[in-house]
Amino acid sequence: MTFGAKLAIAQKLTSSVVCVGLDPDPDRLPDHLGGLPVNDAVRHFCEAIIEATAEVVCAYKPNFAFFEALGRDGLGVLADVIAAIPNDRVVIADGKRGDIGNTADRYAKSVFEQLGCDACTVSPYMGREAVTPFLKWPDKAAFGLVRTSNPGAAEVQHLDVGGKPLYSKIAEMMHEWSDTEPGQIGFVVGATEPRVLAQIRNQFPDVPMLIPGVGAQGGDPSEVVAAARPRESPVIVNASRSILYAGKGVDFAKRAHEAARAMRDSLS
Amino acid sequence: MTFGAKLAIAQKLTSSVVCVGLDPDPDRLPDHLGGLPVNDAVRHFCEAIIEATAEVVCAYKPNFAFFEALGRDGLGVLADVIAAIPNDRVVIADGKRGDIGNTADRYAKSVFEQLGCDACTVSPYMGREAVTPFLKWPDKAAFGLVRTSNPGAAEVQHLDVGGKPLYSKIAEMMHEWSDTEPGQIGFVVGATEPRVLAQIRNQFPDVPMLIPGVGAQGGDPSEVVAAARPRESPVIVNASRSILYAGKGVDFAKRAHEAARAMRDSLS
Repeated sequence: MTFGAKLAIAQKLTSSVVCVGLDPDPDRLPDHLGGLPVNDAVRHFCEAIIEATAEVVCAYKPNFAFFEALGRDGLGVLADVIAAIPNDRVVIADGKRGDIGNTADRYAKSVFEQLGCDACTVSPYMGREAVTPFLKWPDKAAFGLVRTSNPGAAEVQHLDVGGKPLYSKIAEMMHEWSDTEPGQIGFVVGATEPRVLAQIRNQFPDVPMLIPGVGAQGGDPSEVVAAARPRESPVIVNASRSILYAGKGVDFAKRAHEAARAMRDSLS
Repeated sequence: MTFGAKLAIAQKLTSSVVCVGLDPDPDRLPDHLGGLPVNDAVRHFCEAIIEATAEVVCAYKPNFAFFEALGRDGLGVLADVIAAIPNDRVVIADGKRGDIGNTADRYAKSVFEQLGCDACTVSPYMGREAVTPFLKWPDKAAFGLVRTSNPGAAEVQHLDVGGKPLYSKIAEMMHEWSDTEPGQIGFVVGATEPRVLAQIRNQFPDVPMLIPGVGAQGGDPSEVVAAARPRESPVIVNASRSILYAGKGVDFAKRAHEAARAMRDSLS
């Protein structure tokens, strides 16, 4: 099944475009998990969040840095957490890698074959060889960074390149690099710049988009809905902290469910 | 001790600017290791390479993708390999990460505190917040991608930005972002473009440079020597495959030593 087909089913099943970013910060876990070894606490926390939110979200996006920071068993915890995600939801490996071809190959094997993820994020700065190795798996997708959601993104991504901003040129290049099935290359465009989101969405209606930056980063769901209105290809709207840390008590999973459901409803 | 001081000592001890990139590919290990479980084979291979080359190289650069590709225990193997590197050599974590501030913080903690590396590589596409979190550790350094060594790098990195190539603008920005101790920000500039190497070296004589691309990628050591001739700050010249896979027999470590020594001598 293609990535696009798997995503379409997940979005229909859940009536949701919401993706939960799994960024487990040991300092922000519910208080009652404080007594556990940190890796056990993170594993339990993520599994509970997944179980509580799966009904209302189409995807999960584990953020690799947070698992690597757990130390030598970090990838084991990550693998356990990924295994807890229902098979009919989409898993997006968020590592934002970008490296020369032989290294990108290795990372693609790691996320697609070892960890069984459906997609991953990639950074375009190193060019074509940093992106195309991820397109060799016909049932997988790679989301390339176009316009990110962080406050300092514009300083680089809005540099003027022959009359257009760098992010726009990068989007054109990545679209051209992808001579594979439509839908194998996606773009990351932040919710914090709805004007840019609408522009990229209009220019590339056939490219799936991963949209971070609603929730803790301040993107407005109604502006995202307006900017990303239906085209041939889907959008996935990610929130991490606003769902994960909606509650800090024993009812944290219930609070996460409510936050995810509210986000789903605000985006429909 | 600052990163610069540690590197200066390592380079004096070994009379070498060579860094060995640790990119252990299970398909290219010596034949006699074929019977071992792959993680044990990789661990043994890297430890033997380190032991055999330490006399003639100043630094090691583990490439994270190759360890992550080992699966759930990959970071454990990486930690063991890093522990085998002598304390008076420099360790550069090669992950080429670049993410929003709270995630970059997490990755920095992972490589500097958990793994005890001295420096890491970072990707500048996401801007200031993707780079500056790595500068909070006064004894550590971050090498930002400027002009990489891969064949397709120019398509993005040579884009014209107001009359200068993107890589040059990125170098200026990263230099400006680093308002910390000189030497905490370094640049990655490939050996495959000696003209660019000389230009960046002339423009930023106070910035340490990590130079990949000699050996298997085709960069010419004599051109690197000419382009990177001594300034206030050091260079580190990386080779991976040409040292790691110099031999495939039981004498692989001896062959690696010879390749590393020959590279040291060609660069002095």
